[in-house]
Amino acid sequence: MRLTDTLIKKFATTTILALTVSYATAEPLTLNPLLIEQQGSFAVGGTVKTSEGTYNPRPDITTGKTSNDFMDVFKANITNGGQTLHGDHATIAYQIPSNAKQLPLVFLHGAGQSMRTWQTTPDGREGWNNIFLRKNYAVYLVDQPRRGWSGRSTVDGFISAIADDQFWFAQFRMGEYPKFFNGVAFPQDAISLDQFFRQMTPNTGAFDVDIISDSLKALFKRIGNGVLITHSQGGIAGWFAGIKATKNVKAIVAIEPGNFPFPEGEVPATIESAFGDIMPAKVSQADFAKLTKMPIIIYFGDNIADTPSTIQGEDQWRIRLALANQWADIINNHGGDVRVVHLPKVGIKGNTHFMMQDLNNSEVADHLASWLQEKGLDK
Amino acid sequence: MRLTDTLIKKFATTTILALTVSYATAEPLTLNPLLIEQQGSFAVGGTVKTSEGTYNPRPDITTGKTSNDFMDVFKANITNGGQTLHGDHATIAYQIPSNAKQLPLVFLHGAGQSMRTWQTTPDGREGWNNIFLRKNYAVYLVDQPRRGWSGRSTVDGFISAIADDQFWFAQFRMGEYPKFFNGVAFPQDAISLDQFFRQMTPNTGAFDVDIISDSLKALFKRIGNGVLITHSQGGIAGWFAGIKATKNVKAIVAIEPGNFPFPEGEVPATIESAFGDIMPAKVSQADFAKLTKMPIIIYFGDNIADTPSTIQGEDQWRIRLALANQWADIINNHGGDVRVVHLPKVGIKGNTHFMMQDLNNSEVADHLASWLQEKGLDK
Repeated sequence: MRLTDTLIKKFATTTILALTVSYATAEPLTLNPLLIEQQGSFAVGGTVKTSEGTYNPRPDITTGKTSNDFMDVFKANITNGGQTLHGDHATIAYQIPSNAKQLPLVFLHGAGQSMRTWQTTPDGREGWNNIFLRKNYAVYLVDQPRRGWSGRSTVDGFISAIADDQFWFAQFRMGEYPKFFNGVAFPQDAISLDQFFRQMTPNTGAFDVDIISDSLKALFKRIGNGVLITHSQGGIAGWFAGIKATKNVKAIVAIEPGNFPFPEGEVPATIESAFGDIMPAKVSQADFAKLTKMPIIIYFGDNIADTPSTIQGEDQWRIRLALANQWADIINNHGGDVRVVHLPKVGIKGNTHFMMQDLNNSEVADHLASWLQEKGLDK
Repeated sequence: MRLTDTLIKKFATTTILALTVSYATAEPLTLNPLLIEQQGSFAVGGTVKTSEGTYNPRPDITTGKTSNDFMDVFKANITNGGQTLHGDHATIAYQIPSNAKQLPLVFLHGAGQSMRTWQTTPDGREGWNNIFLRKNYAVYLVDQPRRGWSGRSTVDGFISAIADDQFWFAQFRMGEYPKFFNGVAFPQDAISLDQFFRQMTPNTGAFDVDIISDSLKALFKRIGNGVLITHSQGGIAGWFAGIKATKNVKAIVAIEPGNFPFPEGEVPATIESAFGDIMPAKVSQADFAKLTKMPIIIYFGDNIADTPSTIQGEDQWRIRLALANQWADIINNHGGDVRVVHLPKVGIKGNTHFMMQDLNNSEVADHLASWLQEKGLDK
């Protein structure tokens, strides 16, 4: 299957060209095919809720009203009790390449995202899914409970169709809408930004860190040892997954996590931001100690302020980067192995909150791959 | 990455064995690796909604309240107007194998499902995604607008956590819960059924055939010619995609579609069922004529009654199979090329509504592959 010449010519007259070329023609010329030993999807974790009554497969229903939508049948029949709801599971898509390394990588997205975070970038380049497959890692992508493919929830959900793209543009440090930050490593054409916004997908039930970390525990029980890679809000569930599945989680990689679990008695003061303060999370000393058992690396990108800023993204990640450094000091004092990498300080510039999709996403991936090698996790 | 011996031994003592073996060890012994030239994901179609007001990246907000959840920041800031919402798009996951045939296959799921329908089966075998990749077809899987990864909707949505698994068990012709039909080609262990129920994922906004078929039109505009394969409720959007993208949709394969678009003046009577009638859908003669331009095959599985039945699944698909035969007669009279395949009549037995996942899913896939070859669509 190839785009026809006609189609390419048609696209060539528009700004879609950059996307089309990288997506449909450039990659096959430069990249080898992926050799995939196994791939598929499955659910892990979750619970079962049962309604009152006794299920009768032959309920006494009268003929339904005339309809061209079979959902009316459903509505007529659903008063039938004693039924189950399977919900609150995570859904996993996995690929195992030929000659896979021993430890797979498990990827958990952040707020408002699904496993799409790790796939094709908004401008059509390969995301970390493909990049790490090419480095011979097995890859497990997670849609957390009540998000994306895992939409079936045991609690009701209301989804507000609120227009908030510009909030996220600011929060994710692309710039001050409609201006991008100078030198930002995010594609700045309209099509890429459109694609980026369309990655967003809402919670279908209340966000629940316990349920999410339980599903990750179930995943590691199924697949055995691995490295957990989290993004943003997913970082919080990731710390608890490390606490709940300490034996199997051989390392945690946290991309700009939303918060950090401090041990009782050593919780620092809330850090203030004009755009919303962050109250540090708290866990028991016993749980905290479990996070000293595995190497941890935490990445932050560019355009993060040192001192309070009137720019939302700069200021919001200022307070989290400060918290990350405080947390790293405490956990390392307890015998842990945490490294905080502020990318501009190691010469990697321009990164947004989505460094796995930025123009230099392969450079960031290489940095991570070096760390995995340094920790002996790449066998 | 391999399951450890310990884990396999542990699983071996439980009913999970069948799943573990087929999933983790049997397949790599018998199947060759997949050679994937390109893979990724992207959004197509959709719209943009804009809120009133003017966006100000530096709103005059007071310090947010202390919080350990950054969503509070969001809530504090969201009163800021002039923002956009990108929604109502479809999301596509694609894989292009080496030596791909000219025409890719585009797969659209049914009600309450996502592209998971086409991936790993509930008992861990390969689904049609892998099966058709192995037949050298490029595969495009769709999450329709307002479902799964495409959760961002331009209208509010309410999701009811209603317990309805047994309704679907009946509707999908697995049997009369908790009994399976005799000889049904669906795995009958508890783990497989649990996995099956966890494939379900709700609408995040109202189901809208126009929006879905528009997104398919946008997909075909992007990828060019292809074959559209729909399941169940997706069949309805599929017919309209055929009407809207007639030049690119080179064939339609409809797995037990929910309804059929009859031409004005030739709409048959509503067919009654104790479990809900079906009123045939209606389109203009001009639109109907477009569906005569491409070969169409429609599949129905087993356990479908010839005459009214007190068993929900048997009766619900009785009326749709009857409608399918009426529709095929009319469209073939208009110069179309529609074939209705009732699988038991061609010796393929036991199929549920999910024939792409049933124990004999590769047999059904082979039947379809033969038809594609017969129609010259496998070059």
